[in-house]
Amino acid sequence: MAPSTNEIVEQLTALLGSKGVLQNAADTGRYVEDWAGHRRGQPLVVARPATTEEVAAVVRFCHVNGLRMAPQGGHTGLVDGALPAETNDEVIISLERLNRIHAIDPVSFTMEVDGGCILEDIKQAAQREQCFFPLAFAAQGSCQIGGNIATNAGGLNVLRYGVTRELVLGLEVVLPDGRIWNGLKALRKDNRGYNLKQLFIGSEGTLGIITRAVLKLFPEPEHTSTALLAVPSVEAAVQLYGMARRGCSDLLSAFELIPRACLELAFEAASQLSDPLACAYPYYVLMEASATGPVDLDTMVEQLVENAMEASLVLDGVLASSAAQAERLWLIRESMLEGQRARGHHLRTDIAVPLSRLAAFVEETTAAVEQASPESSVLVYGHIGDGNLHYNILPPPALDDTAKTRLLHELEEIIFTVLDRFDGSISAEHGIGRLKQAAWLRRTSNDELALLAGIKATFDPDQLLTVGRILPAPDIR
Amino acid sequence: MAPSTNEIVEQLTALLGSKGVLQNAADTGRYVEDWAGHRRGQPLVVARPATTEEVAAVVRFCHVNGLRMAPQGGHTGLVDGALPAETNDEVIISLERLNRIHAIDPVSFTMEVDGGCILEDIKQAAQREQCFFPLAFAAQGSCQIGGNIATNAGGLNVLRYGVTRELVLGLEVVLPDGRIWNGLKALRKDNRGYNLKQLFIGSEGTLGIITRAVLKLFPEPEHTSTALLAVPSVEAAVQLYGMARRGCSDLLSAFELIPRACLELAFEAASQLSDPLACAYPYYVLMEASATGPVDLDTMVEQLVENAMEASLVLDGVLASSAAQAERLWLIRESMLEGQRARGHHLRTDIAVPLSRLAAFVEETTAAVEQASPESSVLVYGHIGDGNLHYNILPPPALDDTAKTRLLHELEEIIFTVLDRFDGSISAEHGIGRLKQAAWLRRTSNDELALLAGIKATFDPDQLLTVGRILPAPDIR
Repeated sequence: MAPSTNEIVEQLTALLGSKGVLQNAADTGRYVEDWAGHRRGQPLVVARPATTEEVAAVVRFCHVNGLRMAPQGGHTGLVDGALPAETNDEVIISLERLNRIHAIDPVSFTMEVDGGCILEDIKQAAQREQCFFPLAFAAQGSCQIGGNIATNAGGLNVLRYGVTRELVLGLEVVLPDGRIWNGLKALRKDNRGYNLKQLFIGSEGTLGIITRAVLKLFPEPEHTSTALLAVPSVEAAVQLYGMARRGCSDLLSAFELIPRACLELAFEAASQLSDPLACAYPYYVLMEASATGPVDLDTMVEQLVENAMEASLVLDGVLASSAAQAERLWLIRESMLEGQRARGHHLRTDIAVPLSRLAAFVEETTAAVEQASPESSVLVYGHIGDGNLHYNILPPPALDDTAKTRLLHELEEIIFTVLDRFDGSISAEHGIGRLKQAAWLRRTSNDELALLAGIKATFDPDQLLTVGRILPAPDIR
Repeated sequence: MAPSTNEIVEQLTALLGSKGVLQNAADTGRYVEDWAGHRRGQPLVVARPATTEEVAAVVRFCHVNGLRMAPQGGHTGLVDGALPAETNDEVIISLERLNRIHAIDPVSFTMEVDGGCILEDIKQAAQREQCFFPLAFAAQGSCQIGGNIATNAGGLNVLRYGVTRELVLGLEVVLPDGRIWNGLKALRKDNRGYNLKQLFIGSEGTLGIITRAVLKLFPEPEHTSTALLAVPSVEAAVQLYGMARRGCSDLLSAFELIPRACLELAFEAASQLSDPLACAYPYYVLMEASATGPVDLDTMVEQLVENAMEASLVLDGVLASSAAQAERLWLIRESMLEGQRARGHHLRTDIAVPLSRLAAFVEETTAAVEQASPESSVLVYGHIGDGNLHYNILPPPALDDTAKTRLLHELEEIIFTVLDRFDGSISAEHGIGRLKQAAWLRRTSNDELALLAGIKATFDPDQLLTVGRILPAPDIR
């Protein structure tokens, strides 16, 4: 017989101490609500183990008692993967107390950290050793590396340094029955058997809980050159990217597309911002190159801009002449997210298309969206160097919540249907979780689903860990 | 009842035409013998499908008839993965006729190719579009990309561009029952469900046969700077690498450790070579940096060498002043392999250790090997930037073949035992295949083997594809 909630709390407290268990609604708020505050889950209890052994003990306890588990990092994910189910039957396992930085090796350019370490803390610790951990995005001050790895997070610097997958050398994982899998190698090359590390990365916590990782570091960039360039079209931005890769010797560290509408959202959100250029343009590229050693980056970027203006790919632009000015340019990128948030409920996507088809995709999708809902506002921005767009939509403000939700759902399917024709991905970086599950299932063959279910059954035959994320929950318990 | 060999030949000929089936010993020589000519397998027949559909048809035929299959690319692997078993019960499926280059997209920097394309052909096709496919190693003129992907090949440029895993965007795979898995996306970011692509990569053909791939390209380097630097020790080479990463803005494309003994083997093998430096040194680093756009690489490398000499990390060196001179320096690296081959049967390893422990590992291992066999010659060279060494041993020439084999086996275990203490890998790039299986099994937990067996059973429940590689063959058929 399953233990009562009181028994669960009692036994988990015996394993983890009183700091390790939260049950009162007053304490558990941020664990049970999604990032935007739109959806709430209903867990049994929140367990907060502080060591790998404690994670293993909690998992063993849940496994023995047939309790479902929902591991949770910084809870900044956007697809409800870490959000507990509404069914009052999941133990949230928060990794937040498992947050030690174990070692930094500046000769090997590696770093060993707990799964619950906050990304920003990792970046700063690396920097203190003149090293650089490149993963970067808006949530870096609260997201945890274990969650970044579980979801194979992307972000701003992927074009230069790769997604999270490419930044992880070793992993320690607690398996769904509480055994500990030790894959904590600090090696750049390792071809021994099937690569379980690669399978854990991006499996969204459904195959195991990441408790520790060895990360790849880079030399800390000594110079950075930042520019905001006005471009006439998405197609010009794509062409400029190719020119920039060649002209800047692949030293580009960011290349973001920003439409005029997003610039204006940024001005709304941050009153200290003003238009850095003399007049308005349809699209902008926020570009950054960085280097160590004797490279004259500014000259390199200036020369690129000159060539691009001659080729009519760039209409106007500003090169940051100081770190403060570069920061102000990046503030546009951050503030436009604030501006979006301030507009309330809207459609967020994170799609990918082959770079050479990106402009045509945007054109076709926008025509379809505008036809379906002329009063909605389209915001297309993102990591153009990766072919990864956030094709977002602000609904007409006059609609009520139910109508907004219905409209945005319809528009999402319109976007995804065009995307299918462009061989794109409905999730370039956020993952599937629960929120993208239906759209993903519709697009995934039964053959592939059967292989995934076979893998899930190999790791979690009792279907207890992070159930219902990616793959649907089994029908019968 | 299993069909007779004659029936198999007849039915495969019906599927593939007469060019698609080889059976006579005169025709099948190179398919049944390993690269060095030491070991021979005994297959039923060699099938040579020319399209994905033909591969699927052969696999379906084998699956229906319970026939084991051994897929084979360029057959340049070093762990007997593609070598047919001696048991006269495997159908070799050679991919050599599946060799079309389908598309090169210089805007997206991607390329779609058949699994049987020869690596060198791919590199040249990319170059014709001013693009660069970085995978590079000695066998590139005959190895096939499908095999490179199946074994997650490494090589010379990994420190800059990553292993094969990081160069593959999409895959098409024929599953062990003949179904075709289509994962041919040309996307840089894609987080939809478990990443089967990553699982196929490096699984050595045991989960499916790679029939097509979308590869990641880079801008073609416009300038290259090559230097051979004499260093006093392995430790100095490791320190120099850290200095070079920072000093050359991560534009290093190769960083190879070469001991004096290997230089002399190169001089033996290539009479046109002479010592590029005035006197002999214990170790050398062959270093290459490359760039596109306005980067003054030569000055960058000169400055690095100056700083390194001041720090006593470099004793002497030569910077190639022309492409021809750079080629001559690289000829040393190639010829030393020839020189080793000419010495006959010897121990080849491809191990990895954390970079910061590499010098200590070499010291400790060499002491242990010299104590066990003072007359053997140790050759330690390799991709030091990746912590990946070829720790090879030439046995005393006077020994007979049986004694050599026994000695080399003993010495391998001595090396691996030290490696265990240094948290290394017994296979950094060659894989496990059949040759490394025993050593790998001894070092792998039953928990991990059970997970791998579960994955194998999910993809190949009938145990017919590439059986006995990585995991042992099942006891009962």
